[in-house]
Amino acid sequence: MAPKDTTEFDELAGLPAVDIRSAIRAGRYSGQTAGLAMGCLQGNLVILHRDNAYDFIRYCQRNPKPCPLVGVSDTGNASMPSLGLDIDIRTDIPLYNIYRHGELDTQVSDISEYWSDDSVAFVLGCSFSFEEALLAEGIGLRHIDNGGTVPMYRTNIETAPSGPFSGPMVVSMRPLSSQDAVRASVVTARYPHAHGCPIHIGSPEHIGISDLGEPDWGDPTVFEDGELPVFWACGVTPQAAIRSADIELCITHAPGRMLIADTPSWRAPNT
Amino acid sequence: MAPKDTTEFDELAGLPAVDIRSAIRAGRYSGQTAGLAMGCLQGNLVILHRDNAYDFIRYCQRNPKPCPLVGVSDTGNASMPSLGLDIDIRTDIPLYNIYRHGELDTQVSDISEYWSDDSVAFVLGCSFSFEEALLAEGIGLRHIDNGGTVPMYRTNIETAPSGPFSGPMVVSMRPLSSQDAVRASVVTARYPHAHGCPIHIGSPEHIGISDLGEPDWGDPTVFEDGELPVFWACGVTPQAAIRSADIELCITHAPGRMLIADTPSWRAPNT
Repeated sequence: MAPKDTTEFDELAGLPAVDIRSAIRAGRYSGQTAGLAMGCLQGNLVILHRDNAYDFIRYCQRNPKPCPLVGVSDTGNASMPSLGLDIDIRTDIPLYNIYRHGELDTQVSDISEYWSDDSVAFVLGCSFSFEEALLAEGIGLRHIDNGGTVPMYRTNIETAPSGPFSGPMVVSMRPLSSQDAVRASVVTARYPHAHGCPIHIGSPEHIGISDLGEPDWGDPTVFEDGELPVFWACGVTPQAAIRSADIELCITHAPGRMLIADTPSWRAPNT
Repeated sequence: MAPKDTTEFDELAGLPAVDIRSAIRAGRYSGQTAGLAMGCLQGNLVILHRDNAYDFIRYCQRNPKPCPLVGVSDTGNASMPSLGLDIDIRTDIPLYNIYRHGELDTQVSDISEYWSDDSVAFVLGCSFSFEEALLAEGIGLRHIDNGGTVPMYRTNIETAPSGPFSGPMVVSMRPLSSQDAVRASVVTARYPHAHGCPIHIGSPEHIGISDLGEPDWGDPTVFEDGELPVFWACGVTPQAAIRSADIELCITHAPGRMLIADTPSWRAPNT
């Protein structure tokens, strides 16, 4: 299990991405990354055996809104030069989830013992990038104001399958005024590498959500008068697809503990 | 070799994509597709053996500007439902190039005899989509006015390699006034699925092009007073990477003979 942290969030806030990764790599920080290295891309991590890599990369190609792929390692190579020259994917994430046959087995802060010559690492863009952009536009986000986790729901929208990977699209939901819903749509459309524009606004029942008060993940949220639910494709989608695929060993980041890249949050790497 | 066409370009112009594909599938048309099914996405085709599929899809992920992947078939399955429900990739392109070990072996209008359970088809967005958008903005394109092929050049910009695939980025060049160069940058940025915004404007020597009058592919073009050369990443890049990779068998569209999809040209499929 992860050792006790010797560095606090507040000590890392304001540092450049490379220094934050250095502290994480040294085992000094295993906490959440939201709010760190503002302006830098953060990403979800998925590590699979090479036998599953092609099916998974094709799953991402077919479902770019829930699975916006921003980096793929060479097989057996833990570096990720397009996201940061020093990145070692085995140590640079604060906390990892180890899944065996879809079940969470343990959490660790260093996966060196799990990494092999057959491992492939995938990094997917995440909502932190577009939330940063929304806040910069003056669009408030309730789950942040309330210190909670954004509510997430399974929908009745099926993703395009690829090999063993399939399942419903999972969405995150943010309550916004009608005017902010429009502005948020325009702003997030500029972030295709971070889920892009909303996939639905309004009636949750149209996408198979019966009760907004009972999210499948995250915390329920309150609505103010006149607010609409605005739904974005969510990075839990590929995680759910991987779990239901019954993969022998899969490693992901622990929730809220992302890879912090050097590349800017407002642009897809390599573009 | 391709049989003699029984349908003329002018008979197809104005027809919906599905009817044009039907004529092509029946072997009645083997000509170019530029100007057909305006508003519909057209794409470059690459067919590889499954053994090369993962390295190639990762090459596209790492080099999205020259290689904007818009569709990948299931292995051994010639349909492409995300681009058109009736598509049969073995028959729906007017003319195919068959490469063996990087050398053009023959051209055919039906690849059924080359397709196997191990074949994978990749479709990549092409400049037709953004050229259509530029023309709609009133930005003239000289190679179209002159009835020629856009000039293309090898650059000194190396693509990010993946397995056997590597090599220089190839660019297409269009001469534009300073004002149109800016407008064209803004317009084509909205087409990341079709090479996106320019990769360079101005000095060709900065990207390793010594003589604009001697393109590596296509026709030289003339400049009018005050015009700048504007360079976009080009779909010849992956073709050159495949040829230099010495792949046993690779099938592509013949130049100018694209897959015509049902999906709109202004939007990446699945988004």
